[in-house]
Amino acid sequence: MALASDSRTTSTTLAGDRPAASATHRATVGVVGAGQLARMLIEAAGPLAVRLRVLAERADDCAAEIASNVRLGSPNSLADLSAFAAANDVTTFDHELVDAAALEVLEAEGHRLRPSAAVVGLVQDKLAQRRVLRDAGFPVPAFAAVNDRSGLDAFGRRFGWPIVVKTIQGGYDGRGVWVLSDPDAVVRFAASTSVTSRPVMVESFVPIVRELAILVARRPSGDSAVYPVVETVQVDGICREIVAPAPITPTLAAAARDLAIQIAETVDATGILAIELFATDRGLVVNELAARPHNSGHPTIEGCVTSQFEQHLRAILDWPLGATDLVRPAVATVNVLGADTVTDPLDRLPLALEDPRVHVHLYGKRARPGRKLGHVTVLADTVEAAREAARNAAAILTGDAVEGWPR
Amino acid sequence: MALASDSRTTSTTLAGDRPAASATHRATVGVVGAGQLARMLIEAAGPLAVRLRVLAERADDCAAEIASNVRLGSPNSLADLSAFAAANDVTTFDHELVDAAALEVLEAEGHRLRPSAAVVGLVQDKLAQRRVLRDAGFPVPAFAAVNDRSGLDAFGRRFGWPIVVKTIQGGYDGRGVWVLSDPDAVVRFAASTSVTSRPVMVESFVPIVRELAILVARRPSGDSAVYPVVETVQVDGICREIVAPAPITPTLAAAARDLAIQIAETVDATGILAIELFATDRGLVVNELAARPHNSGHPTIEGCVTSQFEQHLRAILDWPLGATDLVRPAVATVNVLGADTVTDPLDRLPLALEDPRVHVHLYGKRARPGRKLGHVTVLADTVEAAREAARNAAAILTGDAVEGWPR
Repeated sequence: MALASDSRTTSTTLAGDRPAASATHRATVGVVGAGQLARMLIEAAGPLAVRLRVLAERADDCAAEIASNVRLGSPNSLADLSAFAAANDVTTFDHELVDAAALEVLEAEGHRLRPSAAVVGLVQDKLAQRRVLRDAGFPVPAFAAVNDRSGLDAFGRRFGWPIVVKTIQGGYDGRGVWVLSDPDAVVRFAASTSVTSRPVMVESFVPIVRELAILVARRPSGDSAVYPVVETVQVDGICREIVAPAPITPTLAAAARDLAIQIAETVDATGILAIELFATDRGLVVNELAARPHNSGHPTIEGCVTSQFEQHLRAILDWPLGATDLVRPAVATVNVLGADTVTDPLDRLPLALEDPRVHVHLYGKRARPGRKLGHVTVLADTVEAAREAARNAAAILTGDAVEGWPR
Repeated sequence: MALASDSRTTSTTLAGDRPAASATHRATVGVVGAGQLARMLIEAAGPLAVRLRVLAERADDCAAEIASNVRLGSPNSLADLSAFAAANDVTTFDHELVDAAALEVLEAEGHRLRPSAAVVGLVQDKLAQRRVLRDAGFPVPAFAAVNDRSGLDAFGRRFGWPIVVKTIQGGYDGRGVWVLSDPDAVVRFAASTSVTSRPVMVESFVPIVRELAILVARRPSGDSAVYPVVETVQVDGICREIVAPAPITPTLAAAARDLAIQIAETVDATGILAIELFATDRGLVVNELAARPHNSGHPTIEGCVTSQFEQHLRAILDWPLGATDLVRPAVATVNVLGADTVTDPLDRLPLALEDPRVHVHLYGKRARPGRKLGHVTVLADTVEAAREAARNAAAILTGDAVEGWPR
């Protein structure tokens, strides 16, 4: 509660193999990072009486604003992480931009990290992740690690053009990804970037019929629960829309669910694991993993029996998992991105609410062009009806005319 | 955010006729009281980026625990209320135990109270409330204000036995209500209580077929939205179960909805107005009003498109109201009351979650016998299925054997 600072509200300091919860023990979860995912974890923690703490880099981070228990610190400082983890039963993550070596130390100190340091390290490293998936037999694009231009050229000659180049660490929302159509593009790429001073991952260009995502929640005990497959729509590498159920065959949906459960098992995930998939003419291809609640899971908040945020808390606390099925036949979520002319979606919130079926989530972030500021979810009898209503509301919040919708 | 005290996080001080929200203005709602209703308002405020503050009597009040913005103070101190309201766009209430005269002063100072001081005063006073409803032509039991034993006897002779005696102010959860079966019971009642040193309300005993409740949300502009009628089950005057849809005819349901809208209009409610009804062989009878989110509305959190808590915020901010229909055919909520042998439901939370369809809400309150510590909601295809699952989970949390369920 806000009258007291963090150090005063937190009296328990647990480490190592902690004893079973005593009669009055309240489960305490610490979230490293204080973005919108941490914010929505806070919203989910209240009903379960889970004490939720956040480690925020800045006091005005969007989760810090609504948190009752905030510690300021860096996700790359071992001292900050260690002091933070000491008061948590379980420590989890809002994002992957955490010093993985520090996490190994925390585990050695006896702190319980979920996902584990190994899993966080894996999802940080696109190359390592890809190798693990390939070695376990999951369908992935052809790929290689290359250090220079000639490596890119050689990959294109062998696997065909275009090729896709990705930074091994740190890329997100379309940053750190380049599609090169031919050897000339490689020349231009090499001239215009410093990327090839470090190794990059190159992969074959997958002819995508549609992009899918699937969430699986997994407990340390091994139980898992998988959500309905969603279709995601990306524009410039940024997720714009998510709909469920995805317009795919039951056979493909079942294959995606099996993949998700097996991948979670293979990497020993705990909590939510999000798996981005490509549907191609020749079946599913695994693109990337995220070991945390995920943008593609926002429809679950209203659309499924158990939201991904509640599910993540239950999974990392090793509590029984909730049902994942849709409560209505269809759900659509449209992200609210900052407009080029910076205005705050808050100004238009009442207008967006004029459609009584619209669920608006604003993250309390300062508006900037292209920044994810919120999302809108609508449940309906059909994906089309849900999507249209969600698009309209998102366009109102963004300040865009509906006609300008990029699709 | 928790690192700063309330006085430091709150910089805006608005009073009187406030100007229209500026581009960056975040709606600020203050809740007087920090019980479970305030707690659930906090949970609903996050997605709408509404800044929610609470006025708590004690630092360990259950809403204060999860609030990012807490002020300590008394709901009966004009100074505390005035200082609290000064930083809010709108001030609302967790409970009715507020000094009504102080609220009149706040309004005169220009603070925006929703519900208004007049409505809070009305719902505090069962006699005044009953008179307003009767004078407007709504169906209410025969009633009178009496000062002494002879008044009770006279009422029983005129309207028949048994009679129901209620304190005019302050009763709740069955406290302050006595059913007297005959003149001898009046003698015993008068001898054993000091109630008749003040006037009480006496009313005729209504032969109840079932108890119902209905919520209506109303904006200052007059728009309203009414929720599905629920059946409530009381034991010893305390609500134990709520199910929707109520097992009543469409005609009776329509009559209840009409009543709700008209009553909200008559008393000029803003926000959620909860109306407790008796279904009798001769139609509906209005029992009591509450001008705030209400226990009978907890099924709306998961069961309806818009929860009563989000709806209350939208209504008091004069924003468009959300849809109120059920998302599944049936919903049941069972309250979790403290057991006689005090144990904390938290100890059994994972057990209760073993049914994957169960939604558990714990309020973070210290366990005491009979105290409302939380509730459980289940959505299903039938009321029976929802109720059975919710009862089982509540019984686990309470520590009761299911066989012991009081009905």
